[in-house]
Amino acid sequence: MTARGKFLVLEGIDGCGKSTQLRHLATWLPSSGLMPPGAGLICSREPGGTALGLALRQLLLHPPEGLAPHSRTELLLYAADRAQHVQQCIEPALAAGNWVLCDRFSGSTAAYQGYGRGLDQALIDQLEQLATAGLRPDLCLWLALDPLEAAQRRAGERADRIEAEGLAFLGRVHAGFSALAKRPGWQQVCGQGAVDQVQARLQACLQQWFVQNP
Amino acid sequence: MTARGKFLVLEGIDGCGKSTQLRHLATWLPSSGLMPPGAGLICSREPGGTALGLALRQLLLHPPEGLAPHSRTELLLYAADRAQHVQQCIEPALAAGNWVLCDRFSGSTAAYQGYGRGLDQALIDQLEQLATAGLRPDLCLWLALDPLEAAQRRAGERADRIEAEGLAFLGRVHAGFSALAKRPGWQQVCGQGAVDQVQARLQACLQQWFVQNP
Repeated sequence: MTARGKFLVLEGIDGCGKSTQLRHLATWLPSSGLMPPGAGLICSREPGGTALGLALRQLLLHPPEGLAPHSRTELLLYAADRAQHVQQCIEPALAAGNWVLCDRFSGSTAAYQGYGRGLDQALIDQLEQLATAGLRPDLCLWLALDPLEAAQRRAGERADRIEAEGLAFLGRVHAGFSALAKRPGWQQVCGQGAVDQVQARLQACLQQWFVQNP
Repeated sequence: MTARGKFLVLEGIDGCGKSTQLRHLATWLPSSGLMPPGAGLICSREPGGTALGLALRQLLLHPPEGLAPHSRTELLLYAADRAQHVQQCIEPALAAGNWVLCDRFSGSTAAYQGYGRGLDQALIDQLEQLATAGLRPDLCLWLALDPLEAAQRRAGERADRIEAEGLAFLGRVHAGFSALAKRPGWQQVCGQGAVDQVQARLQACLQQWFVQNP
């Protein structure tokens, strides 16, 4: 019988370097010695980890004129995206013994919709239970970067609807991640410095975590 | 100060004549003497009562190959459609003193996803609370028609994804509406017979209801 795979998530505010670091981790992990022989690595992201999710991602991040979702609608659409992602992609991969490395998961909903928009956290937790059917990441890595520095890194890029919320909003989201990262199953990694410096920190963190969670 | 408008909903299985009857009610209601002078009538439907909802309706009822939502995803997408509909359309209309006549609302979710698919009713109720922010119709009219007769009426039409579930599924949905229709705020109207016969029953039911709920 194949051992169940591990579910690793990278979390953080926009501009913290998450997507870049995830690409490097995806190259490193299969040869890191952490994964059992024969286990595959599935890299995914939210929103948009499935074909249906891609359609929802478009509605969430780049809605056509007049189609912007209200805050409760937004929360439900993220949950729908996650439910489809878990059922169609993540859960079958883990059950088959593969590892999943995901750009954002429940932590982002808690940080953005809970801390950022001020939606009721108990409500968010209920929705998460429905969306994930109780699936939790084995490890959430929070790539911590000051919101101002993240915004500067992103200067010149075209912002999507969520990113355009401004610095005050990102500050609340950052504070949210900071609170979440104190929970069991979370690790905080400093996102400051050059790409390879941050990558070295992430790899060291994963190796140390794996010693305690083989 | 304008009196708050009334929120009327027509419920029933596919093929029961709901959409046809709703069109006739929309013509009759403004001249029925039930609505206060100056109040407008907004006719809408779910899913798809808003621009965003139309995009969701397409994903729910006519998903492209490989995009069909899992059952939990489906429940969340219907809730997202409803949240947007309530916030953007129904609630502002009622607050302005207009009446809203809607093809399907929460009753359909309870009947199709709860009774039809067997999803947990307590969970559905929680989601409804989130989607509607507590808004309930003033009156739900259940157009009751035997599932076999409804299916025969629809013979030759191209079925959408939900309608294609088959007669056993529609039977469970029908039983669900039958249970719901015993609740306060619901009225059962027989959907058998010619269009004008059914319309006369609906109008009589509305007039009688209005005497008790002016």
